[in-house]
Amino acid sequence: MKKYKLRTDLIADDPNLNGKTITYNDISVTIVNNHGNYITIKLNDITNHNNMKKCQNILEKEIQKILKLNNINDKDEGIIIGLGNRKSTADSLGPLVIDRILVTRHLFKISSASNNKRCISAFSPGVMGNTGIETSDIIESLISKIKPKFIIAIDSLASSSIERINKIIQITDTGIHPGSGVLNNRKELSRKTLGIPVIAIGIPTVVSSAVIAIDTINYMYKHISYMKDNIHTSKLSIIKTENYKDKIKHKELNINERNRIAGLLGTLSENDRYSLFREVLDSVNENLIVTSTEIDFVIEKLAELVASALNNSLHRQIS
Amino acid sequence: MKKYKLRTDLIADDPNLNGKTITYNDISVTIVNNHGNYITIKLNDITNHNNMKKCQNILEKEIQKILKLNNINDKDEGIIIGLGNRKSTADSLGPLVIDRILVTRHLFKISSASNNKRCISAFSPGVMGNTGIETSDIIESLISKIKPKFIIAIDSLASSSIERINKIIQITDTGIHPGSGVLNNRKELSRKTLGIPVIAIGIPTVVSSAVIAIDTINYMYKHISYMKDNIHTSKLSIIKTENYKDKIKHKELNINERNRIAGLLGTLSENDRYSLFREVLDSVNENLIVTSTEIDFVIEKLAELVASALNNSLHRQIS
Amino acid sequence: MKKYKLRTDLIADDPNLNGKTITYNDISVTIVNNHGNYITIKLNDITNHNNMKKCQNILEKEIQKILKLNNINDKDEGIIIGLGNRKSTADSLGPLVIDRILVTRHLFKISSASNNKRCISAFSPGVMGNTGIETSDIIESLISKIKPKFIIAIDSLASSSIERINKIIQITDTGIHPGSGVLNNRKELSRKTLGIPVIAIGIPTVVSSAVIAIDTINYMYKHISYMKDNIHTSKLSIIKTENYKDKIKHKELNINERNRIAGLLGTLSENDRYSLFREVLDSVNENLIVTSTEIDFVIEKLAELVASALNNSLHRQIS
Amino acid sequence: MKKYKLRTDLIADDPNLNGKTITYNDISVTIVNNHGNYITIKLNDITNHNNMKKCQNILEKEIQKILKLNNINDKDEGIIIGLGNRKSTADSLGPLVIDRILVTRHLFKISSASNNKRCISAFSPGVMGNTGIETSDIIESLISKIKPKFIIAIDSLASSSIERINKIIQITDTGIHPGSGVLNNRKELSRKTLGIPVIAIGIPTVVSSAVIAIDTINYMYKHISYMKDNIHTSKLSIIKTENYKDKIKHKELNINERNRIAGLLGTLSENDRYSLFREVLDSVNENLIVTSTEIDFVIEKLAELVASALNNSLHRQIS
Repeated sequence: MKKYKLRTDLIADDPNLNGKTITYNDISVTIVNNHGNYITIKLNDITNHNNMKKCQNILEKEIQKILKLNNINDKDEGIIIGLGNRKSTADSLGPLVIDRILVTRHLFKISSASNNKRCISAFSPGVMGNTGIETSDIIESLISKIKPKFIIAIDSLASSSIERINKIIQITDTGIHPGSGVLNNRKELSRKTLGIPVIAIGIPTVVSSAVIAIDTINYMYKHISYMKDNIHTSKLSIIKTENYKDKIKHKELNINERNRIAGLLGTLSENDRYSLFREVLDSVNENLIVTSTEIDFVIEKLAELVASALNNSLHRQIS
Repeated sequence: MKKYKLRTDLIADDPNLNGKTITYNDISVTIVNNHGNYITIKLNDITNHNNMKKCQNILEKEIQKILKLNNINDKDEGIIIGLGNRKSTADSLGPLVIDRILVTRHLFKISSASNNKRCISAFSPGVMGNTGIETSDIIESLISKIKPKFIIAIDSLASSSIERINKIIQITDTGIHPGSGVLNNRKELSRKTLGIPVIAIGIPTVVSSAVIAIDTINYMYKHISYMKDNIHTSKLSIIKTENYKDKIKHKELNINERNRIAGLLGTLSENDRYSLFREVLDSVNENLIVTSTEIDFVIEKLAELVASALNNSLHRQIS
Repeated sequence: MKKYKLRTDLIADDPNLNGKTITYNDISVTIVNNHGNYITIKLNDITNHNNMKKCQNILEKEIQKILKLNNINDKDEGIIIGLGNRKSTADSLGPLVIDRILVTRHLFKISSASNNKRCISAFSPGVMGNTGIETSDIIESLISKIKPKFIIAIDSLASSSIERINKIIQITDTGIHPGSGVLNNRKELSRKTLGIPVIAIGIPTVVSSAVIAIDTINYMYKHISYMKDNIHTSKLSIIKTENYKDKIKHKELNINERNRIAGLLGTLSENDRYSLFREVLDSVNENLIVTSTEIDFVIEKLAELVASALNNSLHRQIS
Repeated sequence: MKKYKLRTDLIADDPNLNGKTITYNDISVTIVNNHGNYITIKLNDITNHNNMKKCQNILEKEIQKILKLNNINDKDEGIIIGLGNRKSTADSLGPLVIDRILVTRHLFKISSASNNKRCISAFSPGVMGNTGIETSDIIESLISKIKPKFIIAIDSLASSSIERINKIIQITDTGIHPGSGVLNNRKELSRKTLGIPVIAIGIPTVVSSAVIAIDTINYMYKHISYMKDNIHTSKLSIIKTENYKDKIKHKELNINERNRIAGLLGTLSENDRYSLFREVLDSVNENLIVTSTEIDFVIEKLAELVASALNNSLHRQIS
């Protein structure tokens, strides 16, 4: 399972993994177990207040489950780490979640804090480009000082497809590589390196231009396949159909059709096509990492969602 | 010239237009005259202080030229309008420029202001989604009240290619359509509708996913064409070459080669390919408008560049 | 009633005005009627969610009442104007409220909007120092273009005492003077100048140093008066008492006592003392306008409070 | 010297300290040596570009001097710590300086960095209310991990007078107490606790209401004293005088005059008056910590000033 780094959210897409998808209250949750647990929650439109509440509930439950799977007890002290760069909107999920965490550790130090709260601290280590310090060094030194029983790390992820941007939450207990989407050889944060459970929670907020090009070609195949099968329907009414994406979801072209439509490009596997597009864009230095222009309006809501679920699941005896 | 709207910066790309490109001090300026003036300045990396100064100088001179071409005198009162949404980073160029404009109109009202300053006001009308008011209505009513002699409107643009994002400035005296990139039928701001010269200054900061896919395919053709011509050179050394983009700039595949490599897709004209990709992405509701993740760090510098050039060219007798 | 300008919230303090105070659900509302209506709502700690809800409810009802008193019907189109400077935290209440207003006017223009919403637009005109344009000119020109039936103007106010900062909301239908706290001779926004009802809603967020000095002397008198009457109680237990402010509220020193304690200063009326302190601080250019350092955390909540109450009372048929 | 904590900038005011004031290029620098070095630089209006440059130059030189006094060599690795709360404008000086520091430590780790730069890292630990962790614990653990040779800590300070707010910079090598202005018993950051030199740089940005009241009374005495001595001059022309503050600077009333004017209050020492006002305001819970409303416009410039001086003095071999 080495090849899956949380920084790119490829996990649940792998057809070879025995993922199990359950739908609670309209929201689908996919669970993969492979040398660790991977949970993917598909968010409904969270600008809607009711959807927000539903998503928060599911996330809260999944956090509680993964804490239990890692033998973390209700009284165990934890630290929340917000990875990423506060100044870069698409990379600011971690710090924005930290801003909203209900911290209690200092109250435990002052007096015996109330029984129904857990001892929690929260911290944003910044990024190496701004601090000059390896992020994992900052975290390691802090952990060795305050000795929590577990870590929850929050981060923005690079998306493996357009349609996942700002639309899913991933949770894993296999660790996280701060900055691995951008720079190589960052040290991993995991139970192996830190000696305590590390739960990572991430939301894909950025995507590379190569992925956008790949997705466009894939949608083109599906679109043409659907058109071919519905040749007698007016093109306009096809496209105007609600949920057209769901309709064409399982449509495929066979290799001969793909060859006719897209030549040699059509005969490449998805992995090879991705390698080609990436090579092309990297070589002209235009494989831009981009984010949806709606990010300015969505990132605060995503942070609110993650922070509320964390506050409720960590201090759950409160209410 | 109706088809060119400043909101998408297609103008200077049109091979049918007799554009003239001049290079001053490393910075290329392309001028097209077609029922109005269109100027495109190609920015060098403006995070470098020296480049910033050079670009500012060129922009300052081009603003002065277009003011003269529109018979605007040194003493004529002007208003700077910052279009776009302050809350959306990629769309905030206009309001951020307004924040940096040296306004003097209120000083002229209080006393006879100093001789070496022009009477200038500055205003950000917001966006219709937030005000409920057509942006052009706000501007028209204000113009009819304060009666300036000319308008300079600043806006973020949608880019016609990946490589232009945050990299060029366009100036025109043919008017601007606030919000035309997103909603249709916005009323145009121009000499025709307002009765006074309207100079528009824009920088492309966003791009559609369809354009990214088109650009990827185009770069692929050029890349393959170059590889074919340099078949005996090691692939790795090709790609690692500095300025690879410039090297492949004029490389093309003929239609047979394109057909072999990209099938039917390869035989489409660029316009038809764009229409196809746009249709595909629109039909699945994934034609995301995206922006580079570096926007958070670049937009302030771009605003600084435009505002400094405006302040210097409008109040140029100051120093 | 000319001397009361909403920009300083002196209204309900005047002992000569026949104010009536009613307490609903722990929250006191004072109503003064004197050539117009003045309503002062005393906020409980709004960082507490329940208090926030209570305050919002009261504010909602008072807005509905004053709309009715001004003969504004449920279907009448209105515009919300957010006065003040977005870049100055303590002066940003108006623009922050505008950001949260549910605007509908553009929907009415596109189609027949739903029956249960009112036609509302919202606008932040900025401040003259940044635009070069008299704020009242911007508003007047806009009003004459879009012709609403009434205006609601939101503004940050200068406080007449320390204890009112961020703690009360004032509503009046007598108009407002944008910027009157800082510059003189701003044109007034009122039914008289604009021809339609102008409801002003303000919250004091800043205070002058002279007012702080005055309040300190006043509290000293009350404190000494209370101490004198409780001479046998230990000083420490007096001060540690909860609600000490309420306890000393009606304590006063007579003129002889004040003379002994504060000399000639003690014999001055409150107005004369204010004039003296203002003269002293103005003459050394140190009559700083200050704001509580908690403003960064409170201003968003205050904006949320006003905007929610406005949205509910203006579109009240929604639910 | 125990009683002087950098968090309140009382140092150079103490008449018992043998401070030496030198004026370079219009800018006065006061140096006190008492169990450590205390330097106070009086800033001229830094919104003026030339003054900004002058202040930056002086600050740069004073930083170099204090580094030398602490035996810090040109090649010694250092860390800059930005104390305070990024979300509270008046308390954000530290984090804003960190955002502008030229960090190089990560480059030293990757390759042998260029000879003319020093190894520098930079870090904002946040505040205990948000992290749940004692700030000094975060710093101690980081120091023990990365082992720098010296620390420079930046912080916002509480001012000892109105006229110093945003107007002076203080430097000391005696250490700093993060948060000591607000909470008690914060652990001190100093050579004694950390084992390496700790240079603290602070700017007073906030002031208590009690201090404002004290200053008002003091200015009143000086004003009355001056008026008395200039009884034949018209009052209006006195107050309108430029630099009135300088004129009355050394004016005092004797104890009889103070008694007549301010009664018993007038006979108190300044310390006793401060204790009284503080007791009064604390007991009614109104000893607000306030900041000038201009802070939103000034804090970025102050951060720019400190960061530029630091970058130049730490990497001074660059140019």
